[in-house]
Amino acid sequence: MEYIIGSDNRQIVLGEDEWSGVKKIAAKVAGDIKLVTDAEYKVTESTSASDFSGGVYAATLGKSSLAKELLDKCGISEDTLAGKRECYAFQVVETVNGGSALVIVGSDKRGTIYGLFHISDLLGVSPWVYFADVCPKKRDSVALTDADNFVSKEPSVKYRGFFINDEWPSFGTWTFKHFGGFTAQMYEHVFELILRMKGNYLWPAMWTSNFSLDGPGLANAELADELGIVMSNSHHEPCLRHSEEWDLVKGDDTKYGSAWNFSKNREGLINYWRDGLSRNGKFENVVTMGMRGERDSEVLGREATLQDNIDYLKDVITVQNNLIKETISEDLDSVPRMLAIYKEVEKYFYGDETAEGLRYWPELDGITCMLCDDNFANMRKLPEEFEKDRRGGWGMYYHFDYHGDPISYEWVNSTHLSRVWEQMGQAYESGVRDIWIVNVGDLKPQELPLSFFMDLAYDFDKWGTSNTDSATEYLRNWVERQFAGCEDAYEDIYALLDTYTYVNSIRRPEALNERIYHPVNYGEAEYMLQLADISVSKAEDLWDKFKETPLKDAFYQLVYFPVCASMNLLEMQLFAGINHHLAGQGRPSANIYGGLINECMDRDLELQKGYYECADGKWDGIMGSEHMGFVHWNDEEARYPVVHTVIPSRRPRVVVAGSYSDSYTMGGDWTRHPIVLTGLCSPTCFFEKLELENAGTGDIEWKVTECDEWISLSASEGVLKEGDTDILVVTTGDNLPEGTFVGKFVIKAAMYKVEVYVCARNFTEEEAAIDHFVPVLPDEVAAFVKESDLELSIEAGELELSEDEDTQAPSYRIIDNYGKYGSAAKAFPVNCDFSKVAAEDLPSLTGSFYVPKDGKYEIRLITAPCNPLSTESLLRVKMAIDPESTTDAAFESVTTVGADYQGGERTCPEWAKGVLDNQHETVLTRNLSKGWHDLTILPQDPGVVIERLVIREAAFARKDGYLHNCPVRGF
Amino acid sequence: MEYIIGSDNRQIVLGEDEWSGVKKIAAKVAGDIKLVTDAEYKVTESTSASDFSGGVYAATLGKSSLAKELLDKCGISEDTLAGKRECYAFQVVETVNGGSALVIVGSDKRGTIYGLFHISDLLGVSPWVYFADVCPKKRDSVALTDADNFVSKEPSVKYRGFFINDEWPSFGTWTFKHFGGFTAQMYEHVFELILRMKGNYLWPAMWTSNFSLDGPGLANAELADELGIVMSNSHHEPCLRHSEEWDLVKGDDTKYGSAWNFSKNREGLINYWRDGLSRNGKFENVVTMGMRGERDSEVLGREATLQDNIDYLKDVITVQNNLIKETISEDLDSVPRMLAIYKEVEKYFYGDETAEGLRYWPELDGITCMLCDDNFANMRKLPEEFEKDRRGGWGMYYHFDYHGDPISYEWVNSTHLSRVWEQMGQAYESGVRDIWIVNVGDLKPQELPLSFFMDLAYDFDKWGTSNTDSATEYLRNWVERQFAGCEDAYEDIYALLDTYTYVNSIRRPEALNERIYHPVNYGEAEYMLQLADISVSKAEDLWDKFKETPLKDAFYQLVYFPVCASMNLLEMQLFAGINHHLAGQGRPSANIYGGLINECMDRDLELQKGYYECADGKWDGIMGSEHMGFVHWNDEEARYPVVHTVIPSRRPRVVVAGSYSDSYTMGGDWTRHPIVLTGLCSPTCFFEKLELENAGTGDIEWKVTECDEWISLSASEGVLKEGDTDILVVTTGDNLPEGTFVGKFVIKAAMYKVEVYVCARNFTEEEAAIDHFVPVLPDEVAAFVKESDLELSIEAGELELSEDEDTQAPSYRIIDNYGKYGSAAKAFPVNCDFSKVAAEDLPSLTGSFYVPKDGKYEIRLITAPCNPLSTESLLRVKMAIDPESTTDAAFESVTTVGADYQGGERTCPEWAKGVLDNQHETVLTRNLSKGWHDLTILPQDPGVVIERLVIREAAFARKDGYLHNCPVRGF
Repeated sequence: MEYIIGSDNRQIVLGEDEWSGVKKIAAKVAGDIKLVTDAEYKVTESTSASDFSGGVYAATLGKSSLAKELLDKCGISEDTLAGKRECYAFQVVETVNGGSALVIVGSDKRGTIYGLFHISDLLGVSPWVYFADVCPKKRDSVALTDADNFVSKEPSVKYRGFFINDEWPSFGTWTFKHFGGFTAQMYEHVFELILRMKGNYLWPAMWTSNFSLDGPGLANAELADELGIVMSNSHHEPCLRHSEEWDLVKGDDTKYGSAWNFSKNREGLINYWRDGLSRNGKFENVVTMGMRGERDSEVLGREATLQDNIDYLKDVITVQNNLIKETISEDLDSVPRMLAIYKEVEKYFYGDETAEGLRYWPELDGITCMLCDDNFANMRKLPEEFEKDRRGGWGMYYHFDYHGDPISYEWVNSTHLSRVWEQMGQAYESGVRDIWIVNVGDLKPQELPLSFFMDLAYDFDKWGTSNTDSATEYLRNWVERQFAGCEDAYEDIYALLDTYTYVNSIRRPEALNERIYHPVNYGEAEYMLQLADISVSKAEDLWDKFKETPLKDAFYQLVYFPVCASMNLLEMQLFAGINHHLAGQGRPSANIYGGLINECMDRDLELQKGYYECADGKWDGIMGSEHMGFVHWNDEEARYPVVHTVIPSRRPRVVVAGSYSDSYTMGGDWTRHPIVLTGLCSPTCFFEKLELENAGTGDIEWKVTECDEWISLSASEGVLKEGDTDILVVTTGDNLPEGTFVGKFVIKAAMYKVEVYVCARNFTEEEAAIDHFVPVLPDEVAAFVKESDLELSIEAGELELSEDEDTQAPSYRIIDNYGKYGSAAKAFPVNCDFSKVAAEDLPSLTGSFYVPKDGKYEIRLITAPCNPLSTESLLRVKMAIDPESTTDAAFESVTTVGADYQGGERTCPEWAKGVLDNQHETVLTRNLSKGWHDLTILPQDPGVVIERLVIREAAFARKDGYLHNCPVRGF
Repeated sequence: MEYIIGSDNRQIVLGEDEWSGVKKIAAKVAGDIKLVTDAEYKVTESTSASDFSGGVYAATLGKSSLAKELLDKCGISEDTLAGKRECYAFQVVETVNGGSALVIVGSDKRGTIYGLFHISDLLGVSPWVYFADVCPKKRDSVALTDADNFVSKEPSVKYRGFFINDEWPSFGTWTFKHFGGFTAQMYEHVFELILRMKGNYLWPAMWTSNFSLDGPGLANAELADELGIVMSNSHHEPCLRHSEEWDLVKGDDTKYGSAWNFSKNREGLINYWRDGLSRNGKFENVVTMGMRGERDSEVLGREATLQDNIDYLKDVITVQNNLIKETISEDLDSVPRMLAIYKEVEKYFYGDETAEGLRYWPELDGITCMLCDDNFANMRKLPEEFEKDRRGGWGMYYHFDYHGDPISYEWVNSTHLSRVWEQMGQAYESGVRDIWIVNVGDLKPQELPLSFFMDLAYDFDKWGTSNTDSATEYLRNWVERQFAGCEDAYEDIYALLDTYTYVNSIRRPEALNERIYHPVNYGEAEYMLQLADISVSKAEDLWDKFKETPLKDAFYQLVYFPVCASMNLLEMQLFAGINHHLAGQGRPSANIYGGLINECMDRDLELQKGYYECADGKWDGIMGSEHMGFVHWNDEEARYPVVHTVIPSRRPRVVVAGSYSDSYTMGGDWTRHPIVLTGLCSPTCFFEKLELENAGTGDIEWKVTECDEWISLSASEGVLKEGDTDILVVTTGDNLPEGTFVGKFVIKAAMYKVEVYVCARNFTEEEAAIDHFVPVLPDEVAAFVKESDLELSIEAGELELSEDEDTQAPSYRIIDNYGKYGSAAKAFPVNCDFSKVAAEDLPSLTGSFYVPKDGKYEIRLITAPCNPLSTESLLRVKMAIDPESTTDAAFESVTTVGADYQGGERTCPEWAKGVLDNQHETVLTRNLSKGWHDLTILPQDPGVVIERLVIREAAFARKDGYLHNCPVRGF
């Protein structure tokens, strides 16, 4: 049996008594069919399904008079759907005349809508057909067969949606230009996007806009309700009214009064809230409860005690509950309500020894407690086992966009899918399953992570905890859905999205400046420039192909712009870092980078112009957020890089500098700035580089006048013209001494004699076979070298995991494509109480490494910037060196955050540094003997994500860097 | 009786048996006469004075057979001159035929020479006639009368001369270009300069040159001896041989061996020294004794003890004494010898508890101990009372040029005459009267201070301690001597020399960088730019006049170049500071200053080119030392300012900044960067300034939207075009509140609201009459202001001095034109042991000031960067607040240097900071009640020079600055 969309019976039949919203969606699906097949489908209404002549039949159980008949035709019992949330049956059925039909029966309005949009999915129509101009691949027809028949599951999370926020200047400018404001015309596109993504929930824009007034009038709210979108106001706007609305209606001479303070203006606020509930209570909502200060601030002054705040909130919520009973329903539990445990409200929820918090307050029982991340995509506290199943359930307010400390971010997508998977998975497993809402800022730059967030919420079984490869798999899948038919480009687009999200997530573009990646140490700048260069070249190549195709606008918005604009910003900051670094060395080559900074500034404008020209100007006004030298939430105090210009010396001058070392000299050996090259002490680094630059006047001849015989140089003399730079590659030749040692060569250039020390190790055969060798400096340089870049990094993916035959037993799992270093290890189950697991049953992670000499070493444990999930946790692990087994007494508890750590608190510098640097770092010092060692980690607190182990000599300070140990250097 | 030079009897008559050197000088004086009067004088020789027909007669007692006859004609007894050092009688006498003659009789060769050059002095011929092209004013004739008759005194100091040093690239390039090397042709000019200045002593150049080989051959040494110049080798070149000479002759296969080490190569070094003494011993020398390492370094390694070093030196000196006996004279005391107590040798001289130093070693008795300054013109230790009159006497090695730590200086004169007067006076009064030698580097830039140094050494009675106005008087006098006849210009030239030497001495040009003078705080940059601007304008005006006159070359070298080049360098560093400061504030006006930096770089080249063109290229090659961004002793690692370029914001942007405050804002009030203007709290500051700059795109309208009624603004609205800056002058209007208070005004510019706080005081009539009012900040700003620029400075010249009827009693005296702040106070006698003076007889200095509120105050005592003159001194003074009398028990001892202070030691940071900053600073904190206070200072250790008292609120950190409290701000 098959039904061929586009050829058979071109109609969509609905019951006359079907929800008007379903009828509207049916028309949109007809539009999708036309878009793909050019076939014109008619939406017809009927009072019965008796004339079952073929085409698409859809009905909502309990609403449409066709529903039962259609279920019968499918042979599906009513019980299969009755009482279910948002489910639908989807079945190809033979018609009365022997033809075929597609039957869709929804358990409720959104069930039917999702069923209808399932057709669009099968046709290859992306949810982003409007919002990113993803035009589907043309097809003559699409055949549906028995293989497509199914009855959908209830969605994993009850309310699933997003929050349009921080919408000026970008989204706001756009909607005013194209829709005259935040009107229903615009919101219809937003609602459609939500439904196509099988979401059901929205927090609307609220910066100088009022969802319930701007429709015009109630048109926005009415349309949402019609289409099945459940509305809330944001977390600090109670009782279905916007904070902006308060400014419009308050006044000493009004019934609302002027003070946003329940102690001073109780009557006025009750009137204000009652009117809101009366006005919007008839629609489907989740009512925001409680009260914060105006515009996202604390409600009581600094002098108020915790108890004062708790009592105040209790009073407010009690009154609000009563108002809801009065205006919407006596059955409070039938009215979805939520209280956001955001920022300072967390304190009022948990309380302390002086004041019991709201946590156990009965009046809160039926209200969904909306927990929050730390605004940087890391969970704060999560429900504990005993409270997982509280009556009102739990929600999560998550962020892909944020305005606040320590940095705001919004301009472009800077979210790594794997972090979302890991953190939202942690939440889901802890019982957060009632509301998932994510702040998407201007919406437009967040197409990719939003898609993932919505799919994860809809089908956690598929994309959630059980699927460790979820993020990677999803990204591949998403590329194929948006660029269907462009098989040749899939791999490249995947690589581009993977790379730019990696780059943007390890340091948000808004938090970049010229001092983040070191211009020379570890080759960081060179490595990041390589990443940028490869991505931009690939994007340009693809753009040359796409720009002639219908998918050009989608490609520009989803790939080309975010890749090129992100990389351009990165390059600009790298160039600025190099410009300042070279200028600090008095090198005229700094001026070349000064020019490149200006080119990046121009390129940024050009890329934005290209965006505005997409789809004949459809997006004019969007993507206008400040991002160059960003500091706050808007352009105030933002600053572009300052260009440093070197005036070349008027005398002969040569500057000699390590390409990967900040040591340099502008004078002869008597100035005592010898250059020390250390890379050849590492078994994986095969060359060093030295730069000679003519920073003065006249040609400069240079010549190597002395050189230890084991040092091999790519050149031994040369002539530098004014401003020129020669690069000398330094490798080890023959006749290497034993062990780790130092040698020297001397360059005579102009009148200077420059001494270059080369540290190296002669690796024995045994050592050469060692994967994890800790490189060390020769003792002879310790006297004049204070810092070292030599260290061994072991990435999580290189650690050895314990195995257990019991697949249900606690275990470490490796998450690929995660965090700063490409992989991570996390103990599962994610909310396991490991203190109750016997030591012999604990899973373990082991890193093995070889130390070439006895001494004191630093062991550095790099973890993801997660927060303790309970008030007791310090994100501890257990660690031991060379333990016999997991029961070894040598295991000691290691805290990965400080005792004063407070996740999400702007006043906690450790947290702020963590979210900016995208890692936590714990440093231990241990004496190690020469030879092999095993460093073994066991889980202690849940939620610790291990990214990297670093082992280095403790005698030397660590050189500045952001990544440390870049591939470009071979270590 | 008068003798008219230029008209009467045009001859200079000498004895046939006169010193050949005197004959050569007579010819030079004849040349001077011609230069002034055009009259051709003949130098004739005679065997007797019997044909006493008229003209000039000169003879040396004990040498010329004319001497006694001439003395008789003058009626002067032989005893008047016999046995005297360098004296001469100078007398107009009637001739046998009734005409007139000028008779000069010298007590010795140099006496006669000085007498002859006294004619040149009277003719107005400057010593700088060759070395600075100071051509004298033309006159028909010069009449000498009885009034000119006199017998000169013995010079105050026995050996008086200078050291040509650090002579590459400047002096070296010049002499090679014009004289083919360091030849006798060139040295003849140097010797002549010394004699014209009535000096007698020289340390010759010794960088790649050998005085005794380069003449060619011995010609230099022979000419020096002929002309009466006493030679030494420099302080680390013993036995009349140069350190460069050692490199030429040493060798394993020579009799000298190779090691510059008396333990390892005793025989070789003895041979080397003996040969030197034999070769040059026949000339007049002061033999350098002892031994240091090669090229001005320590002789023994780090492992040697103090005793080792002392023993080594004793051995060396004993051997050298014996060699002198062997080669020059058995009568050791007849051979002038000196040992330089330089750098590390000071330790060997004084010894410590572990080892007795050379100080009391009999073998040293007849050797002059050459003490040294700290290389920055401040005395190190001086002789104590008991050793003042030691047999060998004392010398002083002083510096107008130095290569070494913490900074080298040489390019241009950076010496303040008053410091020389004060410090060399201290030395003279302590018994340092046998040798005065000053390092003049390339000689050429040091014309002025060298003249003063030589005159001070020749006639201490006139220019020394007794004449407190010496430096000022000398400078006026010197201007008139060099620019005789240009009466209209005297005052301007004086002001120019006074200003540039002030500017260069308070921070040596080589030690300037863009971070010294604060670009806004205290208005320092504005003040220094004003000084520069006034000087350069004046110099240009004068140049326009001089460039058409014969004195143009002299004016260029002595005035125009040092003024303009110094000011240009200063301006460049100020511009760089402002460039960086404005760039840090994101202000495009930074770019204007970037352009000015480049203009200064070009101007520097142009000024040097002008120097090379002086006197038809006579000075080509000189003044070529590096000076822009100087770091070491040569151009290595020197760096020109890095130019910072601001890319203007692409959005509307206004930057508001205080003109005299580093507070600024680039955003609205929510960014919490309010601007605080504090100047109006000071009774002497009458305005504040605020800058508004358009740092973005499009015109920006600004408007004052709120303003406290007592604040008066020079404008209340305006429109800024892109890149434009408006300056708002802020003053107090009417209706001032009482006391010290704060007010506010608000500017709306673009979309920003900027808050400006203005602190002010309403001065009562009583307060307005108070000279020394300590300005304080209002309490209300303490919460958000951490630093303050408010303070009261009392200069030394404003202090009240105690008076004593006994003019011989110890007293404080004010030295004008001294140090960083224009005046200083020093207790006299300069080497008085104040501990032996009864308290009631101690002189006192008192500063009175008014404190407007009770509180904690910082009292800052600024003193000159002098060094303790004995091992016990910590340069202490006694200080009390509101004492009844000098015997008050409240006086406490205050040390003006730290307990670990070591003058002249590169390893002592306090010393290094002192010589760079040109001051010492001592900070005390005291509680003071509201009202008047007297701060009284008494002397304790000798040698303390008090420059400034600063009183400020202790609650606020002091803002960065170099001068603090500049006139430009009115405080």
